[in-house]
Amino acid sequence: MTETTSPTRPVFIVSDGTAITAETLAHAILAQFDLSYQQTRLPFVNTVEKALDTARRINSVEKERGVRPIIFTTFVDPDVMRCFNEHVSGHIIDLFRKFVGPLETELGMKSAHSIGRTHRIRDDEKYNRRIAAIDYTLQHDDGQTNRGLDEADVILVGVSRSGKTPTSLFLAMQFGLKVANYPLIPEDFDRGTLPEALQPLRSKLFGLSIKPERLSEIRNERRPGSRYASIENCRQEIFDAESLMQREGIRWLNSTTKSIEEISATIMSELGLEKLHTV
Amino acid sequence: MTETTSPTRPVFIVSDGTAITAETLAHAILAQFDLSYQQTRLPFVNTVEKALDTARRINSVEKERGVRPIIFTTFVDPDVMRCFNEHVSGHIIDLFRKFVGPLETELGMKSAHSIGRTHRIRDDEKYNRRIAAIDYTLQHDDGQTNRGLDEADVILVGVSRSGKTPTSLFLAMQFGLKVANYPLIPEDFDRGTLPEALQPLRSKLFGLSIKPERLSEIRNERRPGSRYASIENCRQEIFDAESLMQREGIRWLNSTTKSIEEISATIMSELGLEKLHTV
Repeated sequence: MTETTSPTRPVFIVSDGTAITAETLAHAILAQFDLSYQQTRLPFVNTVEKALDTARRINSVEKERGVRPIIFTTFVDPDVMRCFNEHVSGHIIDLFRKFVGPLETELGMKSAHSIGRTHRIRDDEKYNRRIAAIDYTLQHDDGQTNRGLDEADVILVGVSRSGKTPTSLFLAMQFGLKVANYPLIPEDFDRGTLPEALQPLRSKLFGLSIKPERLSEIRNERRPGSRYASIENCRQEIFDAESLMQREGIRWLNSTTKSIEEISATIMSELGLEKLHTV
Repeated sequence: MTETTSPTRPVFIVSDGTAITAETLAHAILAQFDLSYQQTRLPFVNTVEKALDTARRINSVEKERGVRPIIFTTFVDPDVMRCFNEHVSGHIIDLFRKFVGPLETELGMKSAHSIGRTHRIRDDEKYNRRIAAIDYTLQHDDGQTNRGLDEADVILVGVSRSGKTPTSLFLAMQFGLKVANYPLIPEDFDRGTLPEALQPLRSKLFGLSIKPERLSEIRNERRPGSRYASIENCRQEIFDAESLMQREGIRWLNSTTKSIEEISATIMSELGLEKLHTV
């Protein structure tokens, strides 16, 4: 990596759809560079007129700042794309076109050229499954209820504030999985066994642990200076939780330096849930 | 679009990271085709040995089924990528390499070639903001509390089951926005004004509406045969809610045929929240 003092680059993400997919990949590509950038997402550029307006808007930013913008695009409509490309000035990264042509040849079929297919509700069943997964996950957050626990695809366990809720919601939202999460509390450690409701569901269990220092930090934001947040208590709870999980043969990971995406991908991989369509 | 009777294509998404980004774009690209496919995500292929194993696994699927697989990849490590590409057979769509090279030239810097930068916790502040947004959004779901309502980036309003909760959670998860949501209920319609707590926060309000038929369907899944779910009641509530929003000058959209991503992108665009970094 080279140290640079170059000016902040304007980055535009332009699409005739939501531009959310484009943004995700743009983000992944830019993460490979030690670059200072300012990003603007411009969704729903779905007519030739809007394409022209958008191109002019981007050009004016280039003029004003004197830096060439980087422009990620995912246009489906070829006329809109052509108009945009003709009028805009900058480094264009076209995330669709490059792959769609060769894929047409490979598959021996034409692509649809219709806008908004990515995040359009194409399949009511899949969509309903996603909404049902979110509902289920909210209802089964933090051990709220044992009703229907056996319907879960995954049951996350771990001490309070170890990252169970955000991970559960991500798995539901991104993959349509029904995720319950269940706190491990001092009573469980005293008893030395899993909560009874979880015992028949061992194959669905996955544990989250975390470094005591980080846990104490997180808990202190919620309840500053409490015993709950103290480093001693965090150390004890984590020691107890990890011992319990080890004894019960529950797979677990340490979430401290991992993103929600990494935690989620690891869980799916460990529980053999990879072979599912994204919703 | 051509009608085809071709066999289901195996699709593999392979990455040395979570493969979540790759999956999103693969999904977007494949949505352009009228293709029957079965998808498997293979994350954390981060050594030459794993690359070789993965290539063999994919090759055996090709042999077994007699159909050439489509393989989306986002390898950051060039050695792993080289090994995989050399040994695998199929139509490879390399989502990174094609863009990273030209971008190195454009930026006059080398890319990092380090794995897991995309969803790695690189920036604790951003990560904490995302977690805080999810916490906030859960605490302010369904009008649970008015405390801290003025801290919201967005406040969604609408009748029960119009899609407020999933949209709120998506905005928090994907964009780190603090989103409150507030149900519009018969008492509000009788009074004919917004709930008092919302009145000073008008600029943050956005409404969701939905077709009565669809609302009735959704509500019937929760409470079959109830007055709450009846088409007459749904019609009335939606008429009242739309009238109220119109009168109060609240921007709103009809969520019936829209995905969570489309609704979210529209809201951000309407409220001028585009110029934010994705978390």
